[in-house]
Amino acid sequence: MAPRWKGKDAKSKKDAEAEALKEPISVHIAVQAEQLDLLDKAYFGQPVRNVAKDMYWFQLTLEEAFYLCYSLKCLKINRGADTSPLNDEELWHCFNSKKQAFSFYYKAYSHLRMKNWVVRSGAQYGVDFIVYRHHPARVHSEYGVLVRSQDNDDDDVNGRLRVWSDVQCTTRLLGSVAKTLLVLYVNKNGHSDGSPLYLENYAVEERTISRWSPEQCRERSL
Amino acid sequence: MAPRWKGKDAKSKKDAEAEALKEPISVHIAVQAEQLDLLDKAYFGQPVRNVAKDMYWFQLTLEEAFYLCYSLKCLKINRGADTSPLNDEELWHCFNSKKQAFSFYYKAYSHLRMKNWVVRSGAQYGVDFIVYRHHPARVHSEYGVLVRSQDNDDDDVNGRLRVWSDVQCTTRLLGSVAKTLLVLYVNKNGHSDGSPLYLENYAVEERTISRWSPEQCRERSL
Repeated sequence: MAPRWKGKDAKSKKDAEAEALKEPISVHIAVQAEQLDLLDKAYFGQPVRNVAKDMYWFQLTLEEAFYLCYSLKCLKINRGADTSPLNDEELWHCFNSKKQAFSFYYKAYSHLRMKNWVVRSGAQYGVDFIVYRHHPARVHSEYGVLVRSQDNDDDDVNGRLRVWSDVQCTTRLLGSVAKTLLVLYVNKNGHSDGSPLYLENYAVEERTISRWSPEQCRERSL
Repeated sequence: MAPRWKGKDAKSKKDAEAEALKEPISVHIAVQAEQLDLLDKAYFGQPVRNVAKDMYWFQLTLEEAFYLCYSLKCLKINRGADTSPLNDEELWHCFNSKKQAFSFYYKAYSHLRMKNWVVRSGAQYGVDFIVYRHHPARVHSEYGVLVRSQDNDDDDVNGRLRVWSDVQCTTRLLGSVAKTLLVLYVNKNGHSDGSPLYLENYAVEERTISRWSPEQCRERSL
């Protein structure tokens, strides 16, 4: 069954589909077998089922797409088939308009990537990212990552971990799947998110949170 | 090893201890064997280890204590040994000053209690309460409860479930222990928390949230 786009006639349904496809929440690229292998080896994105001839559709998160464009300079993105590629500034503004607090998430993503962690979506575990020490096919992920802001509590990235019940929920869930909670506090140091050039001035502080068991940590003298 | 109260000399340490004990986050009552049995059968509070002669220490949460005082009229609480018991209004103000958003939590607690649910702290599962259909010694709890406000998003009780990652985290954790997430939206309908008399004007809306599995719910025609 095809998706049931909203609209009364065939034309408006087609418009609805076109509109929806214009507002992606991830980036899809068509790749050939060799590129597919490269992307997989470098731990970026994931293949999408639809296969057309010898082309494979590959799905990248916004953070992955921007990292490939801006940091690794190995991808160009354009809005449509007939337009020229977006430059770094245009892409930055585009992604910031698509995803709230994108600048925080991207700083956290690139911070971890540059330390050689493989970074994947943490949606399955109720966190922003999960990170692997090697290829996800070989190892289990070690940390569940939540991104927070240190600048101003009201302007928090996602409002997570502000109450104890949330901390208890997250540490218990991650503990049950043998991961540790890693919180990345991104501090913009007064810089705006108006340009990707400011990214290098953002600071990132890392903290891990794990459950403390009184029985295991009690002093021996008791 | 005794607790290491802060302070340079013995006197100030003693003061620190006295101050800390003056600010309880739960209510401790000394009971005899018969009362202990009654409280346990009625599913209130939990016994504390320390036993002095034939007296047992029993610990009640603030919601439990207020419910026993205000709704069941079977408990009186005073601030110290030499003072007269606090009336409902005084106790309400006292508990509201001890616990942020106490009025919301109490409304949710009493709402569930009046529907014959046994209500316990949900700290172990990262939620506000867990509820049992019968005595916790006989059944597992069925729901994990989070309390939210419907009045004003900025004045939210605990800020939980405002982002998807939190919803994913909570439903996954509760699902793994065979519980369903129950969200209680408390609406004060414009009333303040200045008196417990307003409680009956608060409205409570119940919603359950559970994970939806595409594989299980896919239409047969596909």
